[in-house]
Formats: sequence, C-alpha cells, structure tokens
Amino acid sequence: MPYPYASDRDEILSRLRKIEGQVRGIQRMVSEDAYCVDVLTQISAVVSGVEKVALRLLREHMKGCVADAVRSSDEGAEKIDEVLKVVERFLQT
Amino acid sequence: MPYPYASDRDEILSRLRKIEGQVRGIQRMVSEDAYCVDVLTQISAVVSGVEKVALRLLREHMKGCVADAVRSSDEGAEKIDEVLKVVERFLQT
Amino acid sequence: MPYPYASDRDEILSRLRKIEGQVRGIQRMVSEDAYCVDVLTQISAVVSGVEKVALRLLREHMKGCVADAVRSSDEGAEKIDEVLKVVERFLQT
Amino acid sequence: MPYPYASDRDEILSRLRKIEGQVRGIQRMVSEDAYCVDVLTQISAVVSGVEKVALRLLREHMKGCVADAVRSSDEGAEKIDEVLKVVERFLQT
Repeated sequence: MPYPYASDRDEILSRLRKIEGQVRGIQRMVSEDAYCVDVLTQISAVVSGVEKVALRLLREHMKGCVADAVRSSDEGAEKIDEVLKVVERFLQT
Repeated sequence: MPYPYASDRDEILSRLRKIEGQVRGIQRMVSEDAYCVDVLTQISAVVSGVEKVALRLLREHMKGCVADAVRSSDEGAEKIDEVLKVVERFLQT
Repeated sequence: MPYPYASDRDEILSRLRKIEGQVRGIQRMVSEDAYCVDVLTQISAVVSGVEKVALRLLREHMKGCVADAVRSSDEGAEKIDEVLKVVERFLQT
Repeated sequence: MPYPYASDRDEILSRLRKIEGQVRGIQRMVSEDAYCVDVLTQISAVVSGVEKVALRLLREHMKGCVADAVRSSDEGAEKIDEVLKVVERFLQT
C-alpha cells in the first residue's frame, strides 16, 4: 500500500477548501470595511491553517519519499537536504 | 480624505484574489499527486503573500485608527496594545 | 515621567541575562554531545524568549517614541513606517 | 566515521559563542538607552543566527540519527514524528 494514504489526501484537501473559504471571507470583510484588527485576526487564522497543511504534507513526504530514498538508494542525503530547504523557507516566511 | 484610501483597498483585494487562486492551485496539485516538495513550495508562497497583506493592513491601521486615537483621545495606549497582540499572534504562527 | 519606565528596562535586562545563560547552556549541551532534539528544544526556548523581549521593546517604543511623534510632530508616519519594517523583519526570521 | 562530524560541532559552537556575544551587546545597548529600533534590529539578528544553528543541527540529526533509524530499525517513523514536532515548535515561535 503506497504512502501517502488516500485518507491523508482527503483530509488535506478538506483543509485547503476551508482555507480557500477563509480567504474569500477576508475579501468580503475588506470590501465591507471591517475593523482592521478583525481582518488581521482572520489572516493569522489562515497562516495557521496553511502551516498545519504544510506540516501534514511534510510528514507524508518524510515517511514516504524521504524514508524510501534513505532505505533503498543513494539519494537519501539529497532528499534530506531538499526537505531542509523547505523547512528553511517556512522559517523565513 | 479618510484613511485607508480606496486605492489601498483595491490593492489588498487584488492580492487576496491572487492568494485565493493559489490555494485553489494547491488543491489541484494535491488531487493530481504532485511532488510534495513542489506543493510545499507553493504553500510557502501563500504564507508569504498572506503576510504581505497583513503588513499592508497593519500599516493602514496604524496610520489611520491608531494614530487618530493617539492624537485625539485617551484610547491611544489601548489601540497600541491591540496592535501588539496582533503582532504577537503573527510571530506565533 | 519619561517612558520607558526604569522598571521595564530592569525586566528586559533580566530576561536578556536569562537568555544569555540559555545560550551558554546550549553550548555546553553541544560540547557534551547531547541528543540533538533536546538541543533543538532549548534553541526554540531561546527564540521564544528573545521574541518576548522584542515585543516588550516594541510596546515601549510605540507607546513612547511613536506616540510622541504622532502627537507632536510631522514625523508620526515616518516612525510608523520604521516600526513596520521591524515587524516585517521579525516575520521573516 | 560517526555523524555528526567534529567539524560541524566546531562550527555550531563558534556560531553559538557569537550569538552569546550578540545577546551581551544587546544588554549593553538597553543599559545605555540605545534607540529601540536599533535594539530590535540586533534582536532580529539573534533570532536569525539562532535559527541557522537550529537548521544545522536539524540537518545533522536527520542525516545521522533519523537516517540510521530509518535504515536499520523499526523506529524510523517515531524519529520522523519527533523531528516534525521540533519543526512545528519552530514554526510557532
């Protein structure tokens, strides 16, 4: 059975759809001149939701692709470096 | 002439629409089993775009509401504390 | 009575001394080949402590310098832009 | 030859000593009532330096402990979960 499991993908897609809805909600708030601090609170909820999706994907990737590469090929170190670049990018956003 | 200017709002709305499109693009990538690292790269672009919108709103809010409160009322300190809570929340996401 | 109050400065200095001690503790852990995850946990405590100091200073700065500039001079907008640059830098670290 | 290599540890220790010096410099700035924005700029340099050390340690840990566990034992998944918890903690600071 391949990793990622289909159930993970469903969960990730459902989170992404929720985030899409939140971004649309923020547009509505801005159009209707909502109080800036309330808009910013909604925006920080989006960042937080998006980072949860990222961690979920990172877990799948490490348990799937990276672990496979470490176990069965010479590309393990390469795959680990690739993951670290991603983590670095997230720390800098 | 009130602050925020209408042009700021247009710019913010156009950025938010772009972010909404990016989130939809990420859903498509996940559905089509795109390489995890590519999906994560797109996700970090969303975080970065969302934080730019947040900084833009923060600027408007500080130059508008907060500056007004500092100048003309006793609520300046309160408004500043409110802004700091928002900044804190962003640092923790 | 000037802002920042002396008591704030004492509190900030005491936090910074604690952070300095934590950084020394991390050096000791690395020298003694402590388990990486334990070292990383200590490092995240330093980041968190340093950000608390930053938020404290930011509060003082906004209630002091920035509020003064907004109230009594034409440099309010400039001071606000300066603060936003700092916040942006923290979001990107 | 064991991983981490001694040279990595030297590099990490030298970075940590530099960070310790920066934290002491910030204490001096606060004592001497330096301009808040300058202090905050130094603080963001510390955060950035500390995160570089964290990424370095994370790389060693993943190429060493985690890769070993993935290759030669059943604890691979456990080690990956442990790493992800660390990454999550860094995203939230």
